Amino acid sequence: MPLDADRFEAEATALREALLDAQFDLADRSSRAVLILLNGADGAGKGQVLNRLHEWLDPRTIATLAYDINDRCDLRRPPAWRFWCDLPERGRIGIMIGSWYHTMLLHRATGRADEETFHARIAETNRIEDMLVAERVTLLKLWLMLGDNETGGSAINTEAPPGSRNNPLVREWAEIDTKKERNRLVRAARELIQKTADCRTPWHTVRADDPLGRDLAVGRHLLDTLQAAVRWQPPRPGVLPFKPHRVSSTKPVLPTLDLTQTLEKDRYEIELADAQARIFAATQSAAFRNRALIVAFEGNDAAGKGGAIRRLRSALNPVHMRVYPVGAPTDEERARPFLWRFWRHVPLRGHTAIYDRSWYGRVLVERVEGFAAPAVWQRAYGEINDFEAQLTRAGYVLHKFWLAIDQDEQLRRFEARKATPHKRFKITEEDWRNRENWELYAAAVEDMIALTSTEAGPWTLVESNSKRFSRVKILRTLADRLEAEL
Amino acid sequence: MPLDADRFEAEATALREALLDAQFDLADRSSRAVLILLNGADGAGKGQVLNRLHEWLDPRTIATLAYDINDRCDLRRPPAWRFWCDLPERGRIGIMIGSWYHTMLLHRATGRADEETFHARIAETNRIEDMLVAERVTLLKLWLMLGDNETGGSAINTEAPPGSRNNPLVREWAEIDTKKERNRLVRAARELIQKTADCRTPWHTVRADDPLGRDLAVGRHLLDTLQAAVRWQPPRPGVLPFKPHRVSSTKPVLPTLDLTQTLEKDRYEIELADAQARIFAATQSAAFRNRALIVAFEGNDAAGKGGAIRRLRSALNPVHMRVYPVGAPTDEERARPFLWRFWRHVPLRGHTAIYDRSWYGRVLVERVEGFAAPAVWQRAYGEINDFEAQLTRAGYVLHKFWLAIDQDEQLRRFEARKATPHKRFKITEEDWRNRENWELYAAAVEDMIALTSTEAGPWTLVESNSKRFSRVKILRTLADRLEAEL
Repeated sequence: MPLDADRFEAEATALREALLDAQFDLADRSSRAVLILLNGADGAGKGQVLNRLHEWLDPRTIATLAYDINDRCDLRRPPAWRFWCDLPERGRIGIMIGSWYHTMLLHRATGRADEETFHARIAETNRIEDMLVAERVTLLKLWLMLGDNETGGSAINTEAPPGSRNNPLVREWAEIDTKKERNRLVRAARELIQKTADCRTPWHTVRADDPLGRDLAVGRHLLDTLQAAVRWQPPRPGVLPFKPHRVSSTKPVLPTLDLTQTLEKDRYEIELADAQARIFAATQSAAFRNRALIVAFEGNDAAGKGGAIRRLRSALNPVHMRVYPVGAPTDEERARPFLWRFWRHVPLRGHTAIYDRSWYGRVLVERVEGFAAPAVWQRAYGEINDFEAQLTRAGYVLHKFWLAIDQDEQLRRFEARKATPHKRFKITEEDWRNRENWELYAAAVEDMIALTSTEAGPWTLVESNSKRFSRVKILRTLADRLEAEL
Repeated sequence: MPLDADRFEAEATALREALLDAQFDLADRSSRAVLILLNGADGAGKGQVLNRLHEWLDPRTIATLAYDINDRCDLRRPPAWRFWCDLPERGRIGIMIGSWYHTMLLHRATGRADEETFHARIAETNRIEDMLVAERVTLLKLWLMLGDNETGGSAINTEAPPGSRNNPLVREWAEIDTKKERNRLVRAARELIQKTADCRTPWHTVRADDPLGRDLAVGRHLLDTLQAAVRWQPPRPGVLPFKPHRVSSTKPVLPTLDLTQTLEKDRYEIELADAQARIFAATQSAAFRNRALIVAFEGNDAAGKGGAIRRLRSALNPVHMRVYPVGAPTDEERARPFLWRFWRHVPLRGHTAIYDRSWYGRVLVERVEGFAAPAVWQRAYGEINDFEAQLTRAGYVLHKFWLAIDQDEQLRRFEARKATPHKRFKITEEDWRNRENWELYAAAVEDMIALTSTEAGPWTLVESNSKRFSRVKILRTLADRLEAEL
């Protein structure tokens, strides 16, 4: 029986007060953000629920995030990019329409994704959502259910009032037009809701036949979510029993590197120029226009990342390339999951992004220096693999270099930097401190190589005691990789 | 006579040290950013200069910003958007290739812009650059000159080494292919350089025939620029002699408003629904896809901005609409010119952006509360007009509403808010304080209306003692405007 208006008003008034209190608590004293995924049939009232929430809540810390799945400019980056850009910062609430579930379901309904792919996406999505939850984004997943027909009932009538059932504000499923597709969508949605029922953030289904009852139900779910986010306390770091030297059990690879390899000057110049020309040609080619290149540089301090990056830069059209030196995050970055700052700069197709240090900071410096708790950096390997898989699945060529030098060579370079006026800036107290943790860094590198080497996102270990050898190896590896990929 | 390599090395070493010192000073203790506009003929060595600067300077606080003038996704926003997105923050250096001058010159050379338009653009650009300089962005405008042929000499040879004169890294002028266009480009560039020779940031031309000499010349210009940016001191605010009540001399318009106007409930509901349906239809129409709507709401505290925005929101497809409540800037925003936070969220074509308070904060609250010095808010009127002209010239529909209530009505609403639990959040100490400055705000509003009302970006004053009257007037005004524009 539909809710009558008087009872609705009474309940809504009380609910609204509680929601506002919770919203202010979230803004004032929680380190979490709240992201509402608002899904369901067209005509079930997504637009109306949205407007209701904007009526009930303080508009200053709530935002609607909505997407056009066919946006051709968004398609110039991996699909998840648009969602990452909009991720609410701590203390804020985002309401997302047309979330990642929309694409998954649409592809399944139209047959663009087979069942296996669909299941793989659900599994990946569950992992990514677990990551968001761990990174202080509380999720509320709502599915608005129409009784009779999951995908929205009657035909569109543009004469009807905007926002009414036959003229909905949000038209997510306009592309679904055959009965077969409609049935497949209903089945896929049901499966999706079931498959994620036991994960950290289950779906909440809300009956949408009765608009007032629907809005109250949504409001109550949101209240629970906000209060849980406010109650949440960061896990205590606890006393570390010991600094673990390895979490993976592979045979160490760093000791197998032959760091004595060198390259004489004439050959260096010929080979460098050759590799640069190949990289320039590959990245200017028509085949590259729909791909992209992401290169991450990590390495011992003074291993020569800067010099290698300069040689790579000289081989690229500056219009289609950016270099990102990764330093301390800004406050906008700190207020969001750690991968946000990398997602926000994911290059367009046809472009190259070079990272001077990267997202691997979490399992290197943050691990060794204790900036990240063990549980945090240990889960990061999987999170990084998922991140990289999303890039490479979109056709992005991803390559990661570890530049290795030995302790003697590092000492020589530190001393030389101190003595060279225009290199002084390259040597800081921190570098000397890092040097004392050499063994801990080595263990972290071994784990990183063992746990994040993938076919699509390989690590190349670069013997870098000789700068000439190192630069040529890096540029040739990239030239080979690009030619193989294109 | 070209510079010989030994002398270059000697001079470069000293220059590099000085550049690094200046770069660190800029990062550590200057509140200015430095933006280098690197222009000139293809083959004159823009890419090589770029790489040289990246070699000489610390890569952590310098970035290359380069654009593809034909990028179709960038074209979905006003032309200046791409440059604003990338504006370096304080302490940092950006090197821009393909800056706003590139478009101006290309349009002139290909005849897309006539001479009058070209001159108008130069004048506007000078004003915008003055604004950037005032907003703590130091500009260095470099023009690399080839001796023989301004637009680059010989044909492209893709077999030549990347970055050499015949196979340049940067190809800005590939579209210029007739002799007539080439001549027109040379003339336009010469005119541009002359026309801006006497403005705050003149062009520096650099002979590019001799690569080593060219790089040294660029380095020296940069050193001067960095040192000037470091030496710069913010002007002392000084003691205000008085709080000026008006800077414009028009007849006050606020007293002419008939605030007693009301609307009875039945008519309100009919007219509101009618206006909402018209707005929904207009923004869903094919004609709107290449336009965009920007609505700025300003008004007395408690004048009903939030309620009006909610009614407007209900008339829009949430997928193509965002509401931006304007509060305190983030640190990323504070580190850049005040318009940056608005440019960064300029909507795509086909979309609507609603601002709950706006860039007019500079001439309202910042003026009245003294957050901005008189010289700062007084120059803001022109800066805002230029900003809005760039939006409307791109086809954006811009409308600005001032919601006016009288002091008695405001007091009634403040008291009511205190008494209504779910409205308590809307009333703060600051609101009571603002109320005490009623006359100062009124003067600021009169100046704002007088100095920023334009045909393409009109202010509508909204009598808002009656919420119903106010909302209907706003929505009808927008519906009329959209229908007239589309």
